[in-house]
Amino acid sequence: MPAIELIGLDRLPEINKGDELGELIVRAANDAGFKFLADDILVIAQKIVSKAEGRLVDLKSVRPSGKASEIAERQRRDPRLVELILRESRRIVRMDDRVLITETRHGFVCANSGIDHSNIPDSETVALLPVDPDFSARQIRGQVAQLLGLTVAVIITDTFGRAWREGLVNAAIGVAGLEPLVDYRGKPDDHGHLLTGTVLALADEVAAASGLVMSKSARRPVVVVRGVAYIPREGSAKGLIRPSERDLFR
Amino acid sequence: MPAIELIGLDRLPEINKGDELGELIVRAANDAGFKFLADDILVIAQKIVSKAEGRLVDLKSVRPSGKASEIAERQRRDPRLVELILRESRRIVRMDDRVLITETRHGFVCANSGIDHSNIPDSETVALLPVDPDFSARQIRGQVAQLLGLTVAVIITDTFGRAWREGLVNAAIGVAGLEPLVDYRGKPDDHGHLLTGTVLALADEVAAASGLVMSKSARRPVVVVRGVAYIPREGSAKGLIRPSERDLFR
Repeated sequence: MPAIELIGLDRLPEINKGDELGELIVRAANDAGFKFLADDILVIAQKIVSKAEGRLVDLKSVRPSGKASEIAERQRRDPRLVELILRESRRIVRMDDRVLITETRHGFVCANSGIDHSNIPDSETVALLPVDPDFSARQIRGQVAQLLGLTVAVIITDTFGRAWREGLVNAAIGVAGLEPLVDYRGKPDDHGHLLTGTVLALADEVAAASGLVMSKSARRPVVVVRGVAYIPREGSAKGLIRPSERDLFR
Repeated sequence: MPAIELIGLDRLPEINKGDELGELIVRAANDAGFKFLADDILVIAQKIVSKAEGRLVDLKSVRPSGKASEIAERQRRDPRLVELILRESRRIVRMDDRVLITETRHGFVCANSGIDHSNIPDSETVALLPVDPDFSARQIRGQVAQLLGLTVAVIITDTFGRAWREGLVNAAIGVAGLEPLVDYRGKPDDHGHLLTGTVLALADEVAAASGLVMSKSARRPVVVVRGVAYIPREGSAKGLIRPSERDLFR
């Protein structure tokens, strides 16, 4: 029977600026006696990518603008954090007294431009999203290929809220080595009728699946997803972003 | 290392009205030599639940209203299908020349009130969502418990589009036997800071994961998800629906 495995990789050290994540992941896998296979998908939480890329910001270094201070007062939040959220965004998509939903510079629509301070040692420090998560994914993929002589795909994820539904799910923000969307349009269903309008967001399904093994409170930011049939491609998470002219909710 | 398995169950027959899905699933598992374990999560595609519950409608029996005909003309679609979409909805959330996004009677926000005609033998017949997918899930759970003496959880899924992102993902529309949301608020992260605002939509992550094994074109509407740590509860997918007064996108 067709099966997929989701395997959590523990034993990763605390990540610091300049660390080569691909190398650390390969080493942690070795230590755990885990062997990668070709075509495994390596799913990595954004937080450690941001740490490795030095995307931590000390709030003490941030001077809030008037606009940031205004929003912060309305939402009873730290104006320096709001300042960073605005800097990392192209625009505010929705805002009320509790929530600040922005479109990030990458085009992702999420709360707080993806900035948060969970799992960071210093409580005055926050993590921004990687500048170019596709590039980060490609780098890690390259490091793994070089160290192991194996082709894996890499997905970088963050937990995003959704319109209409409660709770966060893990979503893909960076992709390397796979086609993130699978297009079934024009293919026949069980009964020979052509499927219409069916494009599956494979990379987001992989990301969400990995969220079952990653844990917000445990140090397990890397999950290997094995057995997914995907189309090998350079790949990018950009295809997962609906262009705003086709988006009825932006 | 912590691992989760997603196992697709093949060999299910074409489902007809009145079929007991729990029984058919147990039989298909037996035929395949597959053994359920306690606490497995049984993920079932909405389509076969709708078939078993007689939620297929022959379009020839539908007389479209004036409003349905108007929308159908604008969108160049079958007015009888649009009539059913309106009947199954509480209201239209967004509409343009291509897309009709409604809030279903259950409260789900999705395209076309979840109605479609893929994987149905007769091309003039469409499938509506189950009337009460939580009830459907509880029934199947009860049947499995009775036949196998085992407690499993059940999630019924449909593929939904999302705001802001391209592609469909599998989402939970019916839940029995597990708490669909996991609340980490007030728990410490790696560094002892309390996590704020972190509620994970576990049932949706399980649903999305199962989408990797279910396939739109293959007859594989049942996936067993093994190894997920969940909180046993009567459960319901209702908790996954954001109340409209807290929803900035409805």
